[in-house]
Order: sequence, then structure tokens, then C-alpha cells
Amino acid sequence: MISDSIGLVERKSQTWHEPLALESGATLAPVTLAYEMYGRLNPARDNAILLMHALSGDAHVAGRHTPADRKPGWWDAMVGPGKTFDTERFCVICANVLGGCQGSTGPSSIDPLTGKRYNARFPVVTIGDMVRAQLRLLDFLGIERLVATAGGSMGGMQVLQLAVAHPERVRLAIPLATTARSSAQAIAFSAIGRRAIMSDPRWRGGDYEADDPPEDGLALARMVGHMTYLSDERLAWRFDRQLQQSMNLSYTLEREFAIESYLEYQGQSFVNRFDANSYLYITKAMDYWDLTQRGEALGDVFRRAQAKFLVASFSSDWLYPPAESETIVAALRAAGRQVEYHAIESPLGHDAFLLEADILSPIIEEALDRVALA
Amino acid sequence: MISDSIGLVERKSQTWHEPLALESGATLAPVTLAYEMYGRLNPARDNAILLMHALSGDAHVAGRHTPADRKPGWWDAMVGPGKTFDTERFCVICANVLGGCQGSTGPSSIDPLTGKRYNARFPVVTIGDMVRAQLRLLDFLGIERLVATAGGSMGGMQVLQLAVAHPERVRLAIPLATTARSSAQAIAFSAIGRRAIMSDPRWRGGDYEADDPPEDGLALARMVGHMTYLSDERLAWRFDRQLQQSMNLSYTLEREFAIESYLEYQGQSFVNRFDANSYLYITKAMDYWDLTQRGEALGDVFRRAQAKFLVASFSSDWLYPPAESETIVAALRAAGRQVEYHAIESPLGHDAFLLEADILSPIIEEALDRVALA
Repeated sequence: MISDSIGLVERKSQTWHEPLALESGATLAPVTLAYEMYGRLNPARDNAILLMHALSGDAHVAGRHTPADRKPGWWDAMVGPGKTFDTERFCVICANVLGGCQGSTGPSSIDPLTGKRYNARFPVVTIGDMVRAQLRLLDFLGIERLVATAGGSMGGMQVLQLAVAHPERVRLAIPLATTARSSAQAIAFSAIGRRAIMSDPRWRGGDYEADDPPEDGLALARMVGHMTYLSDERLAWRFDRQLQQSMNLSYTLEREFAIESYLEYQGQSFVNRFDANSYLYITKAMDYWDLTQRGEALGDVFRRAQAKFLVASFSSDWLYPPAESETIVAALRAAGRQVEYHAIESPLGHDAFLLEADILSPIIEEALDRVALA
Repeated sequence: MISDSIGLVERKSQTWHEPLALESGATLAPVTLAYEMYGRLNPARDNAILLMHALSGDAHVAGRHTPADRKPGWWDAMVGPGKTFDTERFCVICANVLGGCQGSTGPSSIDPLTGKRYNARFPVVTIGDMVRAQLRLLDFLGIERLVATAGGSMGGMQVLQLAVAHPERVRLAIPLATTARSSAQAIAFSAIGRRAIMSDPRWRGGDYEADDPPEDGLALARMVGHMTYLSDERLAWRFDRQLQQSMNLSYTLEREFAIESYLEYQGQSFVNRFDANSYLYITKAMDYWDLTQRGEALGDVFRRAQAKFLVASFSSDWLYPPAESETIVAALRAAGRQVEYHAIESPLGHDAFLLEADILSPIIEEALDRVALA
């Protein structure tokens, strides 16, 4: 337990030895989830909010673990005392996903059968598997019902999955900038990222050592992925055709535009914190994401949910465009669910769900109030 | 001279030994352009149309060179007897760009100073340099003034450049699905493609042999590039979440969605016909593309043009979105140029300029008639 600038953060991890049955038919044991808790669980254990992180996120939602941390957690603007997810009122929990590389069981974990890293022998996991792992955490913490669960992008997929597969566990579901099924375009960009990693000779069929990872492939995958989180408009505003160092074109094949240096930086810094095999497994889970995969209409799927829904999309998000949120909203309404939808105008692309806290805060606060006071 | 299904095609090439002064300050000699001619140049030499190809195109615009060719030229729907660019009326010419790899001088050409391929020692070329090389071809053919010049994407950049830098040579300029300056987003996707090639160990600083090219890097670059030519809508319509072989998810890291196989095919077939270093040089030329780079307003740049303009954009083109064509049109109008603009509704993305022949044909035919009869 460490205390930091935002109040009380607990970094914990929990391991279950009972095998987790995966959608593929495989089982996985042990399963460890690394998680963080912000604020206090009340005696009734009914003030918990479960946040779900996106592809490149982790359990570290808010604050800094040490004063030396360059950046706070990924939703620092939204989580803390007096903030939207008010840690003086709610107990905010976030776990690193199954398949991840920040303390939860994933391809870089040790396979108990071999004593070595799983690497590419790790079983393929799905969004459903990720959510069932999180359910173990809720059970362990004695949380029968969440006030809310919220997340953007892959986090939003988990929010939808939890609300549909375990309806009694959620009062308010907040899926942001997400989709009910990954599109061909989303799969294509994922697949290119995987191709980049798997083409790197240092990937070695997945059997690289921790100190010799496929850095070039992972950096490239991140650069491609990162582009899908940005908008043309935001890139034009922030970089336009600005050169990084010189006033004049260099007439070489080298990087010289500021956008090139920015992307390279994004790629390199990702390599320092993310495991290439985790990137493969998590993007595969996202590609598999399809709430209608068993042939049901989306409206029928949502008939199983009980939560209220707050859905938001962002106008310049072309990875999970507003139309995909609108499909969710229409199906929720067809299923008779109570749903509030916000089509937010924003130039910030897919990443808007992380960046538009000023717009999201009052919307989410109001919805939380309605549920908490109900 | 070979005759094929569309009538008369001449495949030719011309070499100039006089050094070409490049924008970078370097010079290049000799310069060879490979080109094709469809139809006959009339005695007055005033019935020529110069088509400009895009990044992955070449001089082969229409018809098949041999009956075994799997596909006809890139604008076969538009070029031929009785077609839009009617080869019974016009002499249609297209040259492989400087820096290319289909017969024109480029990085895979032999450097006369060393007797070896230039590879990464080839000088960086610009859209302006490409156009000045084409001008040599017009001079050689004795064509003082073109009826028209047309092209999409990088072809459209050359069309704009020719109309602005050599105004007396063009009566009608038809830039399609293009821009007056490459955006940060366009540069970013180019840069990722170059990064993929240069990260491939087989690139060897550019000094690979013709029989051992950086195939993985080039395939990846093509996959990334190809995605920018498609639209979310087109991908959803054509592939959605269809699996390539099985009825069921495989729960492996392997390719299994049809979109993945399609992209892989695009990458592999590109490797068989394109040189990786050419990809680096041509994308760099596109990144440098900025008609306003000398600090002039775009309207002032267009004041130097004399041609009539026919500009078209496509609604789902997110690489060179309609707004960029509208910037061109507004600047042309501000400059007092005669301009016709078509904002075409199409779900086919950037590639629409190649695919929407049914929509483009009547528009272009009418404009050609007006110019040819004037």
C-alpha cells in the first residue's frame, strides 16, 4: 500500500490456482491479476467501480507511483478525490487484463508445466475470458454488484461483455469509443501490427528472451496502432508539415518531419513498457470481439443485460466510428434497456475518450449520481 | 510496337545524357523514361494527353501486353478506342516516374560512376523533378501543348505541378483525389512504410541485391499503404468478419479473417513487382509535396497557371479528403482560374479515382470536348 498525490492507492495482485476455462476450450492455471484500488470499499461493498483499460493500458489508472514517474495513470483526469470517479465516495478498481504484461498472467508469465515463459504457447484469450478473470477478482473482493463499470476502446468491449454475460453484477455500464464487433478495418490494422512483430527476426516464433525482444516489430506495430487513435485534424493542428530540426528540407531518406519523430518516439517508448507477445494476444482478443458471433441479433444479446447504459462516441474517431456506437444504442433501445447516448464532437480522434475529460466528466457524474442515489 | 486488345500500344523508352538538375541541388545523368503511347500523335502534335500514375502505378495504363497478363493497365476502364481518353482521337501517353522501377531511372538503375545499382545513393527526387523529366519527354515528342493532363493521388500532384510550373504546356488539368500539400497524416503513413522497409535486415542500408530484396518490409509497407486507399465502409461490405477458410475461430495467432489474407496477398504481390528502394524515394517525394513551400499563398501559386481545371474528390477518401480538394478549388477560384469541381459520393475510399470510371467518364469527356473544340 502506497500513498501518493491522489490519496490512497493500493497496488495488489491475486492468484487463483483453480483452472480458468477459456472460450477456446483450453484452460489456464494459475491465473494472476495485478490490480489497483483507489479509495475505500465500504462495509456493504456496494460502492465499487470497475474500470477497464484499453490495449496499451494497464491497472495504473491515476496518480504516480513514485514522484519520478513521468506521467500519471491513464485516466488521471477522471479518477481521484473530488474527480468524476470520486475516490472519496467510490472504490475504484482496475486490473491489468488477462494476456497483459503488467503483472497479470500473460504470454510473458512462467508456464508451470515447463518452468519457462509461455511465449507463443500461451492460449489465445478473448474479451469474454478477460472479463471472467475480472469476475474472480470481484468475487474475491466480495463485490456482488458494481455501481458502474467504464472503459474506452477495448475497455468498452469488456464493459459490454460484463453487462451482457454477468448482468446482475453491474448497475451502470459506460462503454466509450467502442464497438459491439470489431470491423474489417480494425482487424486489418491489428493484423498489420502482428505481421510487423512476427516479421521481426528477433520474434523467433515467439520464443525471444526478455532481454532481446522484437523491438523493431513492436515499435512498428505501435506506430500503426497509434495512427488509428489520432485524427487527420489533430495531426494537422499539432504537426502539420513542421520539420523536426532544420528550417530546410534535408533531401535524404532520413526522418525529418516532426510527425515522423513523434511516431518514432511513440514506438520506442512503447517497446520499453510492453511485451510483443502480449500485443499479439491482446489484439487477437480484440479481433475476435463480436457480441453477435453466436448468430443472435444484437438486440437479443442486450435483452440479457440489466444495467443502465451510458454510451459515448467521438466524431473524429475513425477506428470505432460513431455509427458503431449508434448500432449499440439502437440495439439497447430495441431490447428495452435504459440508455443515454452522447455523440461528442471532438477533433481528438479515438483517443478522445482519454483526453476529453472536460466533456465526459459532467455526463458521467450525473449518471453516477442517478445510479448511486437510486 | 505491339498491338493488343485495346488497339495500338507502343512501349518505348528514351534516354537523355544531359544532366537533370534536381531540386535538391544534385544532378542526375543519364535519365531514362519508360513510357507507353496509345493512339496516334496527329501531324500538328496537338492531340496528346499525358496521364500521371500514382505511387504504385507505372506507364502501363491500358490493355494487356500479353494475353497471359492477369490484369490490364491501371486505367483500362478510361483509356482505349471509344473510351473517355479516346485513343482514336487522342494520343495518350504515360511515363513511369523518375525514381520508379519499371524502366525509368530510379534507385535500382545502374550508377554510371560505379557500374552498380544506385540503391540508397540515388539522389532524392521531388514531384517537381518528376515533372521536369516528363517535360523532356514532351519536348522530345515535339508536343508543345497537351490537350490535358490527368491523374489521381501522386498523379494529381504531378498534374498540379505541371500546370503551375509549365503553364503554357497544358490546356486542361485534371487532378483527382489529391492534395496541394501532403498532410501530417499522409506523411505519417508514408514514414511507417519506410520504417518497415528500413527495419528489414535484408534492406542492408539499401544495398540489397535484386534477388534478395527486403520482402517483409516492402510487403508491410504496402499493407499499410493499401489500408489508406480503402474505406471502412468498403472493407465492411467486402470482408466484414468473414473467415478465410474455416467456419469457426481457430484460437491461434495465425491469420484467419478474410481481410487478413487479402492484405497479405496485396503485400506479397507488390513485392513481386516493386522495388523497395523505389518505394522509399517515391514516398519521400510525396512527403515533400507542398505547392506552398516557398511561403506563397496557394492562390498566388495558381495565378501562374493557365489551364482550365477539373478537380474531383471522393467522399470516403480519408488519405486526401475532399476538404483538401476544396482548398485547391478555392485557391484556383481566388486566382481567377476556370475550375470545375465534383465532390463525388463514393464508398470506395481513395482508390475511387481508379474504380469510379462510370462517374468520372462523362465528367471528363465533357471537359475534354469543351477544350478540344475550343
